[in-house]
Amino acid sequence: MGPGGHDEASLGYRGAAMNMPTAEELNRSRRGYDAFYGLELLELSETEVRARVLVRDELKQPVGLVHGGIYASLAESVTSLATAAAVIPEGNMATGLSNVTNFLRPITDGHVHALGTRVHRGRTTWVWDVRMSDDADRICAVTRMTIAVRPLPDAYAQAQPPTAG
Amino acid sequence: MGPGGHDEASLGYRGAAMNMPTAEELNRSRRGYDAFYGLELLELSETEVRARVLVRDELKQPVGLVHGGIYASLAESVTSLATAAAVIPEGNMATGLSNVTNFLRPITDGHVHALGTRVHRGRTTWVWDVRMSDDADRICAVTRMTIAVRPLPDAYAQAQPPTAG
Amino acid sequence: MGPGGHDEASLGYRGAAMNMPTAEELNRSRRGYDAFYGLELLELSETEVRARVLVRDELKQPVGLVHGGIYASLAESVTSLATAAAVIPEGNMATGLSNVTNFLRPITDGHVHALGTRVHRGRTTWVWDVRMSDDADRICAVTRMTIAVRPLPDAYAQAQPPTAG
Amino acid sequence: MGPGGHDEASLGYRGAAMNMPTAEELNRSRRGYDAFYGLELLELSETEVRARVLVRDELKQPVGLVHGGIYASLAESVTSLATAAAVIPEGNMATGLSNVTNFLRPITDGHVHALGTRVHRGRTTWVWDVRMSDDADRICAVTRMTIAVRPLPDAYAQAQPPTAG
Repeated sequence: MGPGGHDEASLGYRGAAMNMPTAEELNRSRRGYDAFYGLELLELSETEVRARVLVRDELKQPVGLVHGGIYASLAESVTSLATAAAVIPEGNMATGLSNVTNFLRPITDGHVHALGTRVHRGRTTWVWDVRMSDDADRICAVTRMTIAVRPLPDAYAQAQPPTAG
Repeated sequence: MGPGGHDEASLGYRGAAMNMPTAEELNRSRRGYDAFYGLELLELSETEVRARVLVRDELKQPVGLVHGGIYASLAESVTSLATAAAVIPEGNMATGLSNVTNFLRPITDGHVHALGTRVHRGRTTWVWDVRMSDDADRICAVTRMTIAVRPLPDAYAQAQPPTAG
Repeated sequence: MGPGGHDEASLGYRGAAMNMPTAEELNRSRRGYDAFYGLELLELSETEVRARVLVRDELKQPVGLVHGGIYASLAESVTSLATAAAVIPEGNMATGLSNVTNFLRPITDGHVHALGTRVHRGRTTWVWDVRMSDDADRICAVTRMTIAVRPLPDAYAQAQPPTAG
Repeated sequence: MGPGGHDEASLGYRGAAMNMPTAEELNRSRRGYDAFYGLELLELSETEVRARVLVRDELKQPVGLVHGGIYASLAESVTSLATAAAVIPEGNMATGLSNVTNFLRPITDGHVHALGTRVHRGRTTWVWDVRMSDDADRICAVTRMTIAVRPLPDAYAQAQPPTAG
């Protein structure tokens, strides 16, 4: 996970380990791929999550459309983060099992907007639907994401900040 | 993608419009998201394609594993490029319809290796299976990718380099 | 759609092939597999479709739960029928491209209820989400169905009943 | 499934609880939906399974093609049975998590042939690919099936015949 102790503090986890972090807190601790492609979380709860990504040339495939992998990545990030934020306080971790993305309409500029809605909360798997749209709110891609929820290994349970996705 | 004249030349399209570009040619013309996340094509034909991505921190999710979106992106890129390389010379274009990725085992360093195998060549859709593995050749993710093949709009047909994915 | 008699008249099936058939009309012409496993259509339009199947031993897997194939079949039938009913009058046919079904909770008796909602109407593909539930309205399975819409071959166009799915 | 003692005997499980049942044994104990639609197992191991279904009118959709639900059902049955046959002797059960089926080419008569190959054996999920073909061995549908493997509840562990799918 990285340095860790510092993040726990900045995420306000010192005395409130049972609370979900906010979108703003998660954005501040964003790193790795989420920071690289430009994930911007707007709102998250354990049943709904909203985020967006600013379109730029680095996110496009050869003919100038947003690359399909960006939709899959965005859906994966938001549902993993929302699930992790909810289950880590309970001593569990969240790991992606499968990502099913359908591409409906290309996006070439503006933002890709994502709205994730939880479809199912099982004991060992959560299922989410993600609707992705353009600035005109036209539906452009949909993802069905299945996430495994498993007990956090003990070592992790002590050091883990809440952003594991 | 841009108007292309320069690329067409460098891709050897001057007098050989019916040939598929090689992996090396496609790597040289790589740009946008494929360059951004580090796609390295190794070999491609219209039935098989091999590529890899070097793992680095920018491709990881919060707990230090390669982000699920990278597997989905890699599978999407290689199958789109291989399909496009085959169908553009025939006046068609290739567009991703759906990407189904299952995550089997995490990768934390080395390369993500991808082997794409065409499962079906239909008139309007191609279906590929992609196996992704780590440096020890353990299977880590699998993708089933469906790609629509449609007639290239006339305007495109004149300017289009062969890498549209 | 309503109880039917009235609709049939207003849909003018006697001499007006341009209208969608009703659920009741489709149930009367039901045959083959749909009749075999017990599909009962309740309502359909080109954006929404409802149906149910009565659970019986012939639909169960070895430990007494409704077989996963029944959910997949039910989702496939309702979305194919609703799409076909809408596109056949326009001279097109509907063919399933892919069926992605997630199993969330078992059903052992009563009915399997299906509610299909159209997610996307493209020129060549329609995408539907189907929610399947038990008698207590608990969500038990979800399907994302992609259906190809293609021009009907001429021979078909003359002989075709409106239920092609 | 029923009380089971009798089945265990007929399946030769009295003194050989660690062995997988054969395809022939599973065919003899076939019931419910598998018997209803006509599943015929030909061979199974924990990494590969072969089966077929005889095409008849009861398995067709309105225009006379094998219904998409039959491919999904067949793939689900063979992978669930093969997984269950392998894990039940170890005190686990197998439950379908998701079924992703792509339809490639229609079948109108003869048999639907299925070949399932295990892609991944995880601690809690198994993943299989199933290739379905017609009598001319043309590929007609493919399924990616994910199956959860969980500890068998105690009550089950005592009474359970090995065919739970």
